[in-house]
Amino acid sequence: MKTVLCYGDSLTWGYDATDAGRHALEDRWPSVLQNAIGSGVNVIAEGLNGRTTAYDDHLADCDRNGARVLPTVLHSHAPLDLVIFMLGSNDMKPVIHGTAFGAVKGVERLVKLVRQHDWPTDAAEAPEILIAAPPPLCETANSAFAAMFAGGIEQSAMLASLYRDLADELDCGFFDAGSVARTTPLDGVHLDAENTRAIGRGLEPVVRMMLGL
Amino acid sequence: MKTVLCYGDSLTWGYDATDAGRHALEDRWPSVLQNAIGSGVNVIAEGLNGRTTAYDDHLADCDRNGARVLPTVLHSHAPLDLVIFMLGSNDMKPVIHGTAFGAVKGVERLVKLVRQHDWPTDAAEAPEILIAAPPPLCETANSAFAAMFAGGIEQSAMLASLYRDLADELDCGFFDAGSVARTTPLDGVHLDAENTRAIGRGLEPVVRMMLGL
Amino acid sequence: MKTVLCYGDSLTWGYDATDAGRHALEDRWPSVLQNAIGSGVNVIAEGLNGRTTAYDDHLADCDRNGARVLPTVLHSHAPLDLVIFMLGSNDMKPVIHGTAFGAVKGVERLVKLVRQHDWPTDAAEAPEILIAAPPPLCETANSAFAAMFAGGIEQSAMLASLYRDLADELDCGFFDAGSVARTTPLDGVHLDAENTRAIGRGLEPVVRMMLGL
Amino acid sequence: MKTVLCYGDSLTWGYDATDAGRHALEDRWPSVLQNAIGSGVNVIAEGLNGRTTAYDDHLADCDRNGARVLPTVLHSHAPLDLVIFMLGSNDMKPVIHGTAFGAVKGVERLVKLVRQHDWPTDAAEAPEILIAAPPPLCETANSAFAAMFAGGIEQSAMLASLYRDLADELDCGFFDAGSVARTTPLDGVHLDAENTRAIGRGLEPVVRMMLGL
Amino acid sequence: MKTVLCYGDSLTWGYDATDAGRHALEDRWPSVLQNAIGSGVNVIAEGLNGRTTAYDDHLADCDRNGARVLPTVLHSHAPLDLVIFMLGSNDMKPVIHGTAFGAVKGVERLVKLVRQHDWPTDAAEAPEILIAAPPPLCETANSAFAAMFAGGIEQSAMLASLYRDLADELDCGFFDAGSVARTTPLDGVHLDAENTRAIGRGLEPVVRMMLGL
Amino acid sequence: MKTVLCYGDSLTWGYDATDAGRHALEDRWPSVLQNAIGSGVNVIAEGLNGRTTAYDDHLADCDRNGARVLPTVLHSHAPLDLVIFMLGSNDMKPVIHGTAFGAVKGVERLVKLVRQHDWPTDAAEAPEILIAAPPPLCETANSAFAAMFAGGIEQSAMLASLYRDLADELDCGFFDAGSVARTTPLDGVHLDAENTRAIGRGLEPVVRMMLGL
Repeated sequence: MKTVLCYGDSLTWGYDATDAGRHALEDRWPSVLQNAIGSGVNVIAEGLNGRTTAYDDHLADCDRNGARVLPTVLHSHAPLDLVIFMLGSNDMKPVIHGTAFGAVKGVERLVKLVRQHDWPTDAAEAPEILIAAPPPLCETANSAFAAMFAGGIEQSAMLASLYRDLADELDCGFFDAGSVARTTPLDGVHLDAENTRAIGRGLEPVVRMMLGL
Repeated sequence: MKTVLCYGDSLTWGYDATDAGRHALEDRWPSVLQNAIGSGVNVIAEGLNGRTTAYDDHLADCDRNGARVLPTVLHSHAPLDLVIFMLGSNDMKPVIHGTAFGAVKGVERLVKLVRQHDWPTDAAEAPEILIAAPPPLCETANSAFAAMFAGGIEQSAMLASLYRDLADELDCGFFDAGSVARTTPLDGVHLDAENTRAIGRGLEPVVRMMLGL
Repeated sequence: MKTVLCYGDSLTWGYDATDAGRHALEDRWPSVLQNAIGSGVNVIAEGLNGRTTAYDDHLADCDRNGARVLPTVLHSHAPLDLVIFMLGSNDMKPVIHGTAFGAVKGVERLVKLVRQHDWPTDAAEAPEILIAAPPPLCETANSAFAAMFAGGIEQSAMLASLYRDLADELDCGFFDAGSVARTTPLDGVHLDAENTRAIGRGLEPVVRMMLGL
Repeated sequence: MKTVLCYGDSLTWGYDATDAGRHALEDRWPSVLQNAIGSGVNVIAEGLNGRTTAYDDHLADCDRNGARVLPTVLHSHAPLDLVIFMLGSNDMKPVIHGTAFGAVKGVERLVKLVRQHDWPTDAAEAPEILIAAPPPLCETANSAFAAMFAGGIEQSAMLASLYRDLADELDCGFFDAGSVARTTPLDGVHLDAENTRAIGRGLEPVVRMMLGL
Repeated sequence: MKTVLCYGDSLTWGYDATDAGRHALEDRWPSVLQNAIGSGVNVIAEGLNGRTTAYDDHLADCDRNGARVLPTVLHSHAPLDLVIFMLGSNDMKPVIHGTAFGAVKGVERLVKLVRQHDWPTDAAEAPEILIAAPPPLCETANSAFAAMFAGGIEQSAMLASLYRDLADELDCGFFDAGSVARTTPLDGVHLDAENTRAIGRGLEPVVRMMLGL
Repeated sequence: MKTVLCYGDSLTWGYDATDAGRHALEDRWPSVLQNAIGSGVNVIAEGLNGRTTAYDDHLADCDRNGARVLPTVLHSHAPLDLVIFMLGSNDMKPVIHGTAFGAVKGVERLVKLVRQHDWPTDAAEAPEILIAAPPPLCETANSAFAAMFAGGIEQSAMLASLYRDLADELDCGFFDAGSVARTTPLDGVHLDAENTRAIGRGLEPVVRMMLGL
């Protein structure tokens, strides 16, 4: 049995911009990946609305700093064969960091946390890591979201290229979710059901390859 | 689709005392519960070795204080229909608290965190809560574990009765895992594969009832 | 006996720009409100220089993050009938957030903390909440303050309108302190004695109404 | 105008053991002290249920560590002429510290926090400090409280003598609340209305003397 | 024996831009100062890559907030005769603060932490404090560093003048490291061996004077 | 140039029980080790009064939890060839842990922090680690210390044997400081100048061997 951890934000959680609710379980990309790849792999969904890569945000009743929570999640689900990071959209908020560069530094920190983790099982090798760039933000008429993510369209457009370079440098896999999915103009950030499903389908080949399946 | 969160410690994680490894996925009680109850319910396993109810422990590369991490986990998996707490064994360590009374106060805090949580979806009602008493500690020849849990046999034997009273007081469900499973004398704390499976089977009826299935 | 908590920053504390001291007790707006509304109501002043809505600031020998401290203050003064928030000016500092939008998100978090609080008395209903917009920043020749609050004049001018909308959305009361008071050009942020007194007088009618007096 | 800060726990908050509610405002000892000493002194009540001197307790929706919160409270109410500490009962819980010695060390830390505080007003001298020993715990038939405070009767009986020595050593005032008040056998820890009022009356002379009134 | 604490960032640590390694011990400025001033003074080097004055940065496996770590370092090396702060370059990162003004406020906080510290030895007087302005950032072809410090060239050029004013206001010594050293165009921030040595030589006279040697 | 980090508590800091002051620099064991081993090795003293292995203590104006501070210290002094831990005496305080077993678990955590550290220089191998058992506590007429360390004499007597086993298990070096030094009856915990010097001399051979000198 192989185990894959999907560590992400609202795009992984399955936030539905039409009603601020949550997409059905079967529409979320970790579920689609699970179904596509079959029962020999355990795909664990760990998405949190508002999660950043490595920056504090005290606006919610949870810890949104991805770097602070990651070690606990790694312990809970060890031993792991693959960790997929799809984060960075929330880093585009000016109050968090506001630049693609900041998201890159945050993901780099997450990679190091995996590589340096004190695993609960003696035999555990550090898992493979796949860095997934979220689809770029798009224009929206939703003024609250537009304000929250001011400047994010330009910055998020640079994530795929920068994450690809980072993945090469750190010897990680890379996937550009923007190659298969588009954010919704309803809020400029999130994914409709079809686009979140597309990410699960798109990830299948690279995940199979990284797991040696 | 109903969603059940299993929030626990190494008994939920599936720690295997024979080799300090982890029981196979299918032997852990959340998996057994998932299989028993069927695909109409999503059973989420959130066990962490060393997790306490509400007390700090800085001896690991993760946050073992169950009360500090719970809100983030609730967010990640909302909306929830049922939360099962099976915690308290680590509270028996003298350095954590060392008394059944302390575990009761810790579980009470966890229940309140669920009841007061700021849920990410507007429609969410607070989920039902099931308090599960872990099987009592037993005698062991493992001196490291015996030292770590000094006095824990007597104290843990009181958990079931005290948790039952707490569940009544707080209007929660209750399950005594000690009624179906026994800890292993290998270390006096953990469960072998058969005993962890038994908890999943034992929980099925009460979970069905609480979910209205 | 009704109890009102005034949770604010230096405008509530009574910072005096003429000498970096503190206005006399009787000149601070919570005292004026207390005197106006009479001894049947207990008005509690909880102002802290530099307090933000929900953002960290490590520049002082106290915790300036309003969201981190609020639950402790709510406990200390429970049961409460009304909480008045007059915060946001410090959020205008670019290093804190620098936008009116950020202050709105912070106040929203504070409102949720009140609504979700685990009150120490069983009988407690959540108190009413009144969101007060601080008077907008103004031009100043004080270069240190001008630098600290760069861009704050434009942003703070938007607080009243945005807070009013937030209050409507969250079913809270609203008061625009800028309708009765003006900040001093001495530093562009604070209030002289007359203007802080004016806020107490201005609040009296809406507080009476919200308390049902 | 002189200002006195009363920094304490549930004995200062006014916890009523008959109904787990709160004593009327006029029965709490800070109010009695305020009325006795007159309007030329501003007496500020800062009591929190469960507050310890300097130890963590994660069982409540607030920060119970008196040492972590004190600097923020000092800022909010500066400039101060006198700080009264009446703490230590919660330190008697075995999980917190369980010894009178621990409470002494905690109060010593609080005194240093006052002495080293970075006051918001330039002119502020450090205030005088009065260490008040809480009345000793007594026998109770309440089994939950008896368990929570196991061993506390003997330990708390030593607080007055130890605090007196500490006050001498640190050049602070001292008051033995046990000389005027008794804890209630309802829970063995708290005060009925008459006994909390007695503390306010008992404190008046020493407060007057320390304020030079 | 006099003791001098050098509290700084990578410029004090001795980061070598040619290979991301560390300058030889004898080339780092605290060592040069030690050798110049002789064995009657104990010069302690406490430099940390990425250290800020008083701002959080969660991108490394250490605590980069200079204000949070300082009290522990002061304790470890007390009693001290002189503390030299050479910090501020990392504050120039837009995500940290991005302005010279922010660095000034941070250093002011550090000075207060020294002045208010609860020293472990009774006899300890607060040490003298020397504020050293780091050499300004310069142009670089290193795009990662250019992005990380966007806008830093202009802002860092203002540090010397602002730190001098702060030092005067707080009665501290002042040294402009930019008067003797230049940052390297390899990354625009760091110092080559010759330039770090120059700071140690440059500091000797002012350190001698402040120590009364 | 080799670098050795001495990470310890008041025994490393050089606390002098005769006057609550600090031993002269040349009498502290890290200095003695430095002098004995010569200028080809840089011996760094990092002792803090009250430091524990991995447990919180909020009674001082610094962070006494050795595990929380260690990563920052490792960064400051990297690259390292050897880390010497001489900790555990403060763990003997009942409020910290009170058992030799607890100190062992704490040191184990420190060893893992070194092994998993994300070093600032690419080339860094993890340093060697030497676990030094502090000399056992002894009887004292000092009642404050006797109370603070109640039960510590028996427990601390077990540290050498348990640390030796831990060092074997974790492939670390071991040194029993109790083989060359005795604690003073003045307070039952600390070392006079001669005994702290003896530890430096006693460590020299094992340090030379571990450094390959």
